[in-house]
Amino acid sequence: MSDKVLLDYGSGGRASQRLISQLFLGHFGNDELNRLNDAAELSMSGRLAMSTDSFTVDPIFFPGGNIGSLAVHGTVNDVAMMGAIPRYMTCGYIIEEGLPMDDLEKIVEAMGEAVRHAGVSIVSGDTKVVPKGAVDKIFINTTGVGDIIVDPAPSGDAARSGDAVLISGTIGDHGLTILGTREGLEFEADVQSDSAALNHLLVKMVQELPEVHVMRDPTRGGLATTLNEITISSNVCCELQENDIPVRPEVKGGCSILGLDPLYLANEGKFICILPEEHAEKALEIMRADPLGQDACRIGTMTDANPGKVVLVTQLGGKRLLGMLEGEQLPRIC
Amino acid sequence: MSDKVLLDYGSGGRASQRLISQLFLGHFGNDELNRLNDAAELSMSGRLAMSTDSFTVDPIFFPGGNIGSLAVHGTVNDVAMMGAIPRYMTCGYIIEEGLPMDDLEKIVEAMGEAVRHAGVSIVSGDTKVVPKGAVDKIFINTTGVGDIIVDPAPSGDAARSGDAVLISGTIGDHGLTILGTREGLEFEADVQSDSAALNHLLVKMVQELPEVHVMRDPTRGGLATTLNEITISSNVCCELQENDIPVRPEVKGGCSILGLDPLYLANEGKFICILPEEHAEKALEIMRADPLGQDACRIGTMTDANPGKVVLVTQLGGKRLLGMLEGEQLPRIC
Repeated sequence: MSDKVLLDYGSGGRASQRLISQLFLGHFGNDELNRLNDAAELSMSGRLAMSTDSFTVDPIFFPGGNIGSLAVHGTVNDVAMMGAIPRYMTCGYIIEEGLPMDDLEKIVEAMGEAVRHAGVSIVSGDTKVVPKGAVDKIFINTTGVGDIIVDPAPSGDAARSGDAVLISGTIGDHGLTILGTREGLEFEADVQSDSAALNHLLVKMVQELPEVHVMRDPTRGGLATTLNEITISSNVCCELQENDIPVRPEVKGGCSILGLDPLYLANEGKFICILPEEHAEKALEIMRADPLGQDACRIGTMTDANPGKVVLVTQLGGKRLLGMLEGEQLPRIC
Repeated sequence: MSDKVLLDYGSGGRASQRLISQLFLGHFGNDELNRLNDAAELSMSGRLAMSTDSFTVDPIFFPGGNIGSLAVHGTVNDVAMMGAIPRYMTCGYIIEEGLPMDDLEKIVEAMGEAVRHAGVSIVSGDTKVVPKGAVDKIFINTTGVGDIIVDPAPSGDAARSGDAVLISGTIGDHGLTILGTREGLEFEADVQSDSAALNHLLVKMVQELPEVHVMRDPTRGGLATTLNEITISSNVCCELQENDIPVRPEVKGGCSILGLDPLYLANEGKFICILPEEHAEKALEIMRADPLGQDACRIGTMTDANPGKVVLVTQLGGKRLLGMLEGEQLPRIC
């Protein structure tokens, strides 16, 4: 194969077949994918979770991951937030003619590692190559399905007044990393994307605590926007304690320099967990027993004071309304 | 909302919410989508078909459809080719900043009509808006799931020597339409894309004739490439009668002018049906009873002469090997 991706590789013809057999099957191969039908045949039953996401992150390589691993983590997490075991995934590539083949291989390799780690199979795919200039390098869509193992499934409209609000770790890492990399800033070595597959931790959580009301990952729009969505859907008020929200000092520093608010920065390996007060300690124990949840902590409480609002109790004891992100703080963050 | 798509609309924040509630829910709304969770909760059981496709067609509007209707038809068809009833679909948009809002609305409206006609629900979605120049206008990914209703499901590796090879109608219409529109050629009024959802016809086919071995839509790479894939997977030889392959005279004419071979042009509303000889007449009856299959005919036979090859018996009685499309004849055809 050429050392650059050619239009031919997306033709559906012989060159496409070579790309599929030499690259994709090598990293993703499984019995179902290997059959190369137009659709995969899966065996599932009962209540399924299904979610889709298109990834357009710029740059495509960043500290802590690349667009390939991110595309797997994002969809695995969305499926698992429903109290589901992610099982199968599809993958659609849109590649710009001329992308170095080495870059594509690194991306595909990272996806292969990510799906194996998450225990998910890529069962169907699609590759389009578009002429130079019609897309910026590579965009990836992933769509996942999984088996929901709790009834009712956690849902954004299920938060109740009195519930504890937990976060599985520090916030802002992914957003700051992407923006910093894009702007060519050099951070301390330990600022990197938190991109990770949370499904094993999430499944453990709902298995041990089926009482969980909401699990949601604060991606685009960050913690503040995601909590706004939840308070609106559930018609409750979220009161957050600013002092308790975990942000790495390096992330705080980077945000000050760039004029960013970590509360609105995307995260790709964290989740918000909202559940009845009496189960909060147990939930924190479960989180902290997993490396991906070691910095978990309680950050607030749901109340019925101002339904649909998120209120931040500041370090000085004042109260500040945290609105939803209005517009675009950072395009192409994921 | 603005008359152009702004970066804000893909932010995940308030502007995104407005786009979702005012545009997408208006055209796609259903109980599951309206919940706006990260993933949809579906009830399905047994053997499922799952397929994904990203659509990058250029131009986005063309005679016979637009990128929205095409994105629905393409995935509905891929799922149904597995002998499945398509049920649910996800939809991921990647939109270029500045796309006229009217264009987006026309596309979304066409998708809404197409899913209603196909009997499918869009249950989860994702919208990214990328800066001007990072994508050409709009790309759409759709992923569909459906219930497989026959056992075994039709499959590309199931063709057998002696099977009849049928096509549901004329070939080359979509490919010629797209290329002609792109080049600014004016065709006769009746050259237009054949883009259509074939699921109702396909379901009827497998319900009445579960003996069908292969159903496959000859999209990218056209009839010749798709038959090559099947002969390779099934290790049989396909002998086609050139005289019997239906091509509209206008398409023939357009192909001559542009130097294209209709056998290699994409179709978006046709399917190849391969099944035991004794059921061929019945299959043709079923096809012809549906407006989408009214020009159905038999075009060839599977033999064991040259396994993995497609042989065209020409109008003069000669034999010509029809290879797989090697490279890219028409980028961004779907």
